[in-house]
Amino acid sequence: MKGAEVLLNSLAASGVDACFMNPGTSEMHLVASLDSVTAVRAILALFEGVVTGAADGFGRMADRPAATVLHLGPGLANGLANLHNARRAKSPVVNLVGDHASYHKRFDPPLESDIESLARPVSGWYRRTRRPEDIDLDVRDAVSASLGPPRQVATLVVGADASWLEAGPPRARAAREELPRPLGRPSQVSDEVLASAAAVLRSGEPAALLLGGSALREPGLVAASRICEHAGAALLAEPLPGRLERGAGLPAPQRLAYFGEIAMAQMAGLEHLVLVDASAPVSPFAYPDRPSDLVPQGCQVHVLAGDRNDAVGALEALAELVGAPLGASRVVVASRPEFPLGPLTPESLAAALGALLPENAIVSDETITSGIYLPGATAGAPRHDLLSLSGNAIGQGLPLAIGAAVACPDRPVLALEADGSAMYTIQALWTQAREELNITNVIFDNGSYAILNIELARVGAGTTLPGPVARSMLELDRPAIDFVAISEGLGVPASRVTTAEAFTKALSQAFAEAGPHLIHALLPRDGH
Amino acid sequence: MKGAEVLLNSLAASGVDACFMNPGTSEMHLVASLDSVTAVRAILALFEGVVTGAADGFGRMADRPAATVLHLGPGLANGLANLHNARRAKSPVVNLVGDHASYHKRFDPPLESDIESLARPVSGWYRRTRRPEDIDLDVRDAVSASLGPPRQVATLVVGADASWLEAGPPRARAAREELPRPLGRPSQVSDEVLASAAAVLRSGEPAALLLGGSALREPGLVAASRICEHAGAALLAEPLPGRLERGAGLPAPQRLAYFGEIAMAQMAGLEHLVLVDASAPVSPFAYPDRPSDLVPQGCQVHVLAGDRNDAVGALEALAELVGAPLGASRVVVASRPEFPLGPLTPESLAAALGALLPENAIVSDETITSGIYLPGATAGAPRHDLLSLSGNAIGQGLPLAIGAAVACPDRPVLALEADGSAMYTIQALWTQAREELNITNVIFDNGSYAILNIELARVGAGTTLPGPVARSMLELDRPAIDFVAISEGLGVPASRVTTAEAFTKALSQAFAEAGPHLIHALLPRDGH
Repeated sequence: MKGAEVLLNSLAASGVDACFMNPGTSEMHLVASLDSVTAVRAILALFEGVVTGAADGFGRMADRPAATVLHLGPGLANGLANLHNARRAKSPVVNLVGDHASYHKRFDPPLESDIESLARPVSGWYRRTRRPEDIDLDVRDAVSASLGPPRQVATLVVGADASWLEAGPPRARAAREELPRPLGRPSQVSDEVLASAAAVLRSGEPAALLLGGSALREPGLVAASRICEHAGAALLAEPLPGRLERGAGLPAPQRLAYFGEIAMAQMAGLEHLVLVDASAPVSPFAYPDRPSDLVPQGCQVHVLAGDRNDAVGALEALAELVGAPLGASRVVVASRPEFPLGPLTPESLAAALGALLPENAIVSDETITSGIYLPGATAGAPRHDLLSLSGNAIGQGLPLAIGAAVACPDRPVLALEADGSAMYTIQALWTQAREELNITNVIFDNGSYAILNIELARVGAGTTLPGPVARSMLELDRPAIDFVAISEGLGVPASRVTTAEAFTKALSQAFAEAGPHLIHALLPRDGH
Repeated sequence: MKGAEVLLNSLAASGVDACFMNPGTSEMHLVASLDSVTAVRAILALFEGVVTGAADGFGRMADRPAATVLHLGPGLANGLANLHNARRAKSPVVNLVGDHASYHKRFDPPLESDIESLARPVSGWYRRTRRPEDIDLDVRDAVSASLGPPRQVATLVVGADASWLEAGPPRARAAREELPRPLGRPSQVSDEVLASAAAVLRSGEPAALLLGGSALREPGLVAASRICEHAGAALLAEPLPGRLERGAGLPAPQRLAYFGEIAMAQMAGLEHLVLVDASAPVSPFAYPDRPSDLVPQGCQVHVLAGDRNDAVGALEALAELVGAPLGASRVVVASRPEFPLGPLTPESLAAALGALLPENAIVSDETITSGIYLPGATAGAPRHDLLSLSGNAIGQGLPLAIGAAVACPDRPVLALEADGSAMYTIQALWTQAREELNITNVIFDNGSYAILNIELARVGAGTTLPGPVARSMLELDRPAIDFVAISEGLGVPASRVTTAEAFTKALSQAFAEAGPHLIHALLPRDGH
């Protein structure tokens, strides 16, 4: 059996059954083997940023990795931005990068480059498979590594010769028939740490739990809410969660705002901040006259659990320790906004989404400024998963939706996109059409990089009024982008709406019909 | 004056007058300064691969660098593939990457990553500017470094604080008013090397000159042809030239084929291969039963000039040394194909292009398999520049055309694109429309990654017939991509053609009208 076939078999035996790819010549043996290993579903994308974003979305929703197949250094490079987001989301990804045959690299052919230097910044684990006999072990190790703790991007580079040569017997390994296990188990939090956190909560001083990562699913939310309700503490969530379970029937932590000054207002007066698989709040960017560290002055930061700990176990133990009764947690009551009428605005868009969000939806949210009303409008909607822009590298939303839809074929997926971000990886629509995925894409089109208009003022660069050239660098409506035409050109049926009523109708229809849809929501232009 | 303004002034004073950008928050001071430094033309792109490809195209045609502005590690990552091509083309590029303020990085905000690790593989020169006082010198050094020899990508990382702080007096530097000069002068080839090459050519043994890089402009071509005609040697060119001057009135070296076995046939029987700013021919990929090194067995390889030498000077000196008379060079006679009739095929497409190619055109060629008839059909067309896919990283052609059009606003630019490659950086069309560039884009649509169908067989992966899954990974017509809709959606008028006559008409019209156009040329599907 050739190395390529061993590789696919090892993926399948490791429980990796989805492979997003944009292969090239050095990956042709892998492609040729796809028909003999039917347990791995191969999904083609037109650009590598779609491949990696889809793998991230799959990992977030399936809690196990999908694989990528990328073509040498430049193919990897095209996928790095969404691997950066996957790294920040602590998403498990097996990132397979094809390379030249080992003996060919010294000839410095046109596509030769330093793959390791490119891969390291996003990869928690990196290896080059040397011989076809090693592939089975290397794949299993990559799957294990991707599962962490913490979950991470595991990059395995596969030279073309390792793919095409016959593999001898695989290196021995105990219990080969078992699925690869995580590198280790999340460690239990010590009694001292628990006691210290309990003392903080019993002190009566203003305190908050700040939840991130694995604490943002139902068990963590319930235990944390139970603690906070009992102890009178605030319940906060990190600003860019990889995956947050929310909606009616679940506790709702207050998500820290993207902008530092709002986040600081949310934390004002706190004397203790207890981190639960979250980092201490920092400003996404530096500004000349604002702090980088957003923790209020005099507020003590305590770590209950990090990303290698069992955060949910720690929360449950802490709840017991502080004597919080079972059932003390407070959950959101079901409620939906009225159907909005009149002009389409960020507010009416959000209301319509809140009114119509289907049960058990997955929401890939990359709306940036236009999505400001979404958290409020969807808070009491039926339970859903929210996937946010974890690493701030735009171009995530449409690809992420692909991975989520492949991981959860029975759940409706909603991709909420800003116009500027959508154009980074617009090729994703083609894969959505090709795979007939149930994704409703909504483009929030305000005709600009609106976030940058805000940032231009915030960084102090706009203390004098920005000139026409500066302003034009943030404008996306000369020429206006016709997302309906682009979407239809890529095989996804689309419509344009300019009123709340039309949006509501288009959204209902998209949810009711199978396959992908796109709604181009034209928002008012600022200052026009 | 703030660092950002110093930076733009330094670019302008260094002769850098075009800046392609996709900025973010950390680059807002640069953006805000654009109105005060009007000598630098700022050009926005919707994706960083467009930014870097445009900078490459500008460098190839202007022989001096444009600047980029990219947003931290992920923004750089999105631009790396076309920087890889620029590196291979030895194109001068000043690659500016914004970063967090220096003191902010330790907080590990969401967009923090290892920029140096990402940049090194494509950058011949790399520096982080530390203080606003250093910016002027750093920019001038980056411009110098980009000019080489050899020409290269010079990456300068600019932290947000270096941009927003007031710059003290710049560090002293002699002759500040002069334009930055290249790092050094291309060195003259020694008499020994010239004598050795002359001896080879006088030996009567079958020999060829293989031209690359700087030898592929008129002076190098003329001197090389003069030598070859006199000495009875073959005149060859590298397979993926960054820029090749060709057409009626110029000597025409035989370009080595992309596929190794054809290149080997072109070199069969040679006993001497003399390299002139070119590498010894290697196969772009390794194949199980084919050589990596394409030089015929027993053929000696001699280096007349490398990329740090004055290659043209070496050719002219060699011509004198072998006694080749002035005027001995053989040039192509003007000739054009007949206007083709009937169905649109790769052959009729090429004939129409040969028949209509305007005087002094710049051709960005990323046609891959569908362009096989182009070299022949355009050989006798009016003189033009050909820019090829120098680093084999697809997604180059449409962005490259932008840079060429900005560098040479009076010349018609033709982007010849394969369907698969076009979809990598299709966002380029929007910038073409926004800047009203005279670019005619032709999409050669065969509905597949056709090169990979060939490679699938060549790597031996297709010895048994590829199965339906493998074949589907190379197919782009499910769903079919409507390039007319996409182009119009991005503001570029477009038409679809299926006959040679319709193509001829659309092409004539596109050449006659100002601004960008796109022609979607639907080719027959193999096996359909």
